[in-house]
Amino acid sequence: MTWRYAANMPEAAIARWRALIGDDHVWTDDARLRDAGTATFATKPRVLAWLRPANTAEVQACVKVAHELRVPLHPISRGKNWGYGSRVPPRDAVVLDVSRLDRIVDFDERMAYVTVEPGVTFRQLATYLRTVRARVFASVTGGTAGGSVIANALERGDGAGPLGDRFGHICALEVVLPDGALVHTGFARFPGATTAPLARWGVGPHLDGLFSQSALGVVTRATIWLAPYPRHFVMASWSIADEPRLPATVNALRGLKLAGVTPATVPLWNDIKALSLVTQYPFADATTPPLPAAVRQAMRDAAGFGRWNGTVSLYGASRAHADALREVVADALGATADVRFREGPEHPLDAAEDDCGPSLGVAHDRSAASTYWRKRRPVPSTLDPDRDRCGFIWLSHAVPFDGAHASTVSDLVEAELERSGFEPSVALLGVTERALSAVIAIAYDRELDGEDDRARTCHDRVHAMLCERGYPPFRTGVQSPRPAGEQRYDQLVDDIAHALDPHGIFRSR
Amino acid sequence: MTWRYAANMPEAAIARWRALIGDDHVWTDDARLRDAGTATFATKPRVLAWLRPANTAEVQACVKVAHELRVPLHPISRGKNWGYGSRVPPRDAVVLDVSRLDRIVDFDERMAYVTVEPGVTFRQLATYLRTVRARVFASVTGGTAGGSVIANALERGDGAGPLGDRFGHICALEVVLPDGALVHTGFARFPGATTAPLARWGVGPHLDGLFSQSALGVVTRATIWLAPYPRHFVMASWSIADEPRLPATVNALRGLKLAGVTPATVPLWNDIKALSLVTQYPFADATTPPLPAAVRQAMRDAAGFGRWNGTVSLYGASRAHADALREVVADALGATADVRFREGPEHPLDAAEDDCGPSLGVAHDRSAASTYWRKRRPVPSTLDPDRDRCGFIWLSHAVPFDGAHASTVSDLVEAELERSGFEPSVALLGVTERALSAVIAIAYDRELDGEDDRARTCHDRVHAMLCERGYPPFRTGVQSPRPAGEQRYDQLVDDIAHALDPHGIFRSR
Repeated sequence: MTWRYAANMPEAAIARWRALIGDDHVWTDDARLRDAGTATFATKPRVLAWLRPANTAEVQACVKVAHELRVPLHPISRGKNWGYGSRVPPRDAVVLDVSRLDRIVDFDERMAYVTVEPGVTFRQLATYLRTVRARVFASVTGGTAGGSVIANALERGDGAGPLGDRFGHICALEVVLPDGALVHTGFARFPGATTAPLARWGVGPHLDGLFSQSALGVVTRATIWLAPYPRHFVMASWSIADEPRLPATVNALRGLKLAGVTPATVPLWNDIKALSLVTQYPFADATTPPLPAAVRQAMRDAAGFGRWNGTVSLYGASRAHADALREVVADALGATADVRFREGPEHPLDAAEDDCGPSLGVAHDRSAASTYWRKRRPVPSTLDPDRDRCGFIWLSHAVPFDGAHASTVSDLVEAELERSGFEPSVALLGVTERALSAVIAIAYDRELDGEDDRARTCHDRVHAMLCERGYPPFRTGVQSPRPAGEQRYDQLVDDIAHALDPHGIFRSR
Repeated sequence: MTWRYAANMPEAAIARWRALIGDDHVWTDDARLRDAGTATFATKPRVLAWLRPANTAEVQACVKVAHELRVPLHPISRGKNWGYGSRVPPRDAVVLDVSRLDRIVDFDERMAYVTVEPGVTFRQLATYLRTVRARVFASVTGGTAGGSVIANALERGDGAGPLGDRFGHICALEVVLPDGALVHTGFARFPGATTAPLARWGVGPHLDGLFSQSALGVVTRATIWLAPYPRHFVMASWSIADEPRLPATVNALRGLKLAGVTPATVPLWNDIKALSLVTQYPFADATTPPLPAAVRQAMRDAAGFGRWNGTVSLYGASRAHADALREVVADALGATADVRFREGPEHPLDAAEDDCGPSLGVAHDRSAASTYWRKRRPVPSTLDPDRDRCGFIWLSHAVPFDGAHASTVSDLVEAELERSGFEPSVALLGVTERALSAVIAIAYDRELDGEDDRARTCHDRVHAMLCERGYPPFRTGVQSPRPAGEQRYDQLVDDIAHALDPHGIFRSR
């Protein structure tokens, strides 16, 4: 990567930024820059400075300076992009941290939406809704409750509950463009439009997709749709004892999703994934990694997990409705899986961080704790896998919501991770009706020599293998190679990026 | 509009097109050009030639010539954009008609999708699915069965049934860009990607929105998602006797949509809209337009309609499920509306063009027949409102899915249309959970002197009034003024358009 700006440019820019947003919010000390440049795996790019504007106008001002002086920026919201690079930019850059924009700007319970800034976390939003005793809830991430609601949606994160396709349920983006100008998408571009927070497409070409998994602008506000709390919630928990039952289970779940029996994400977790949420690698038993098959079996038996495990969340508009849905699920899954049902709490205030919680909007750090799987110390109360040198890399690939494909992918991935000496943590998330989000974790300990390299090699192998077999990634991190597809498509994206960002402030070309 | 090409350019282009796709498929005779330049209201732009390429390669070749010689093109699929301009371009242009691309390329019943070309009509697709005895169905337009499945989705048309937000349920676009190059969107840009027809977003910025309600490319193929035929279908038909009951009904319907009781579009039709599907203006009774209030009342009473009418489609995964949904709907609507329930056919082959049909994928021309409302001759068996000089203009505006807003809009619109001497046909379509698509028809007879002008004046007044009150359009036609919003947003769209189409082949700037 060659520098586009002269050697003295960052300093000139830093002086301007200090004048604009205050000395206290332009961080340049080595310790902080090293923190911001540390992820859960080895990375090379350096953080040149760390800007913390207070509001949209300050974001615009910061971006204008970068545009003028040709300084590359890397926008982050809460910086919890663990497993995809945390706060680390894809190239040497100044981090533009919008976490101070943390207001809940608007909330409408009847119309079931909330408008927030990018610093608002899942925990903050859930607490707010609880405080106002709202009977609506947000889809929560499987990542950390400390993550940004907006950034996770823009990165096309998957969520629990009825609005799990998170990018599919946001609208009215406020975006700072690479030249510092501000635009609003959808109907929000019309002042006074009553449907700005209520409808996605607006009129004319729909641009929201340009600001998702891209670096074509900084989103400083968005509307997030919420789901009404159900009259009667029932959760089906299922497990299967062995691999051969997986395909039929997957096909049954697809049928339930297509028929609209559940609007929620249906997660399928293998045993390692399930275990990694409730425990750590059994170093205490003097077991040396990788985990022997017999120990794996014993651990899942002790925890009451099957080889594969999952839930189906049912949102009843009446008791009879919930009962009918329950019966449909029992019929669909009963032949292959052990299924248990439990009723959820009648009131949102009673929803807790148990199995039902995430399906009802309870923000939690259960999954994020799995970043400590291979650490020899216990999971701390405040998670910071970057600081704690947790080794953690996500691979996120799209797979048909089909039993045969699910088995193929799970077999390939488990074999490759085991060959590389890692426990294969595999989740297949039925966020939508026709595709599964295969989310694979490589967990290790960065404090051990050589592990960074070994994990990276394993990541690259799995990535290449899945792409080659027809399973491209649906989400990438700084560790990911640019997926190889049509060249003309890449050129189209580059042309659009160049039109918006001719100096490559947000995006290298 | 000034011409960008020299006077002899179209002739040079025409010679090249003839060589590329054959003389028989380059139409330049006055009669045909006049046909193509005729809509259901007065329009000015001229059609300079009419190209009918046979396949994607020929589309690319035609576009390349236009790009090279700077000839403006206007792509049409089936040209049934009645009420929005039919086949008429927004400026003098050569019509690029892709109706010969009419193959059903792929169909997968298990995964519930079909991949089609833009010439495939709703009728053709429904017939195909019936022929192969598929247990899945497509969302059908409220327009004509002869319309293009792809074009309607790209124009963000509303459909009946569970996938009524038609643009929200397509993926894997194949697009001919303004320079004639071909790209594929979503995962379709990766050769061999197993999820190309199964997931929308792909990886990286999502570009599909750029090719919707735009003229940034010609879509020559797309995947359309289908819904499984339900085990037990029940349709609730409701009506209310008077206006004051509308707000509570609207709010009840929003509650049903938000709670997921019905995945389908919930239509609300006023009496004129309902009558216009089953009858014509009562000229036979010597009634002179506009329709007197007493006759309107008598007509709706005779037809068994209420002041407002609608349906709620229920898709049961079991008998008990359908029964439970039915009870929820009865509870929600019973206080304000008369509600009747009927069971749908158990097998798709028995679904007919009755009230249930559209909710189960039966393509029909019932709504399209309403273009003949003010004609003094009966509706012909083959609808051609352009030829038959039907006067028909749509206004499509987004309104909150809220009782008070629905009443405000309906009152304003009815009063304005009546003041202008037209029967106010108003539909409020609950396609999604939070917004209503207000679809207003101005129907008249183009054979009467002065009616074109009167209708256009009425259109412009309603358009301005609704925009001013915070209800911008969600779909526009060649009659529509460019909606006035943020200038920087318009510039952003123009910048993107310029990057893709520097010579303005598809889009004037």
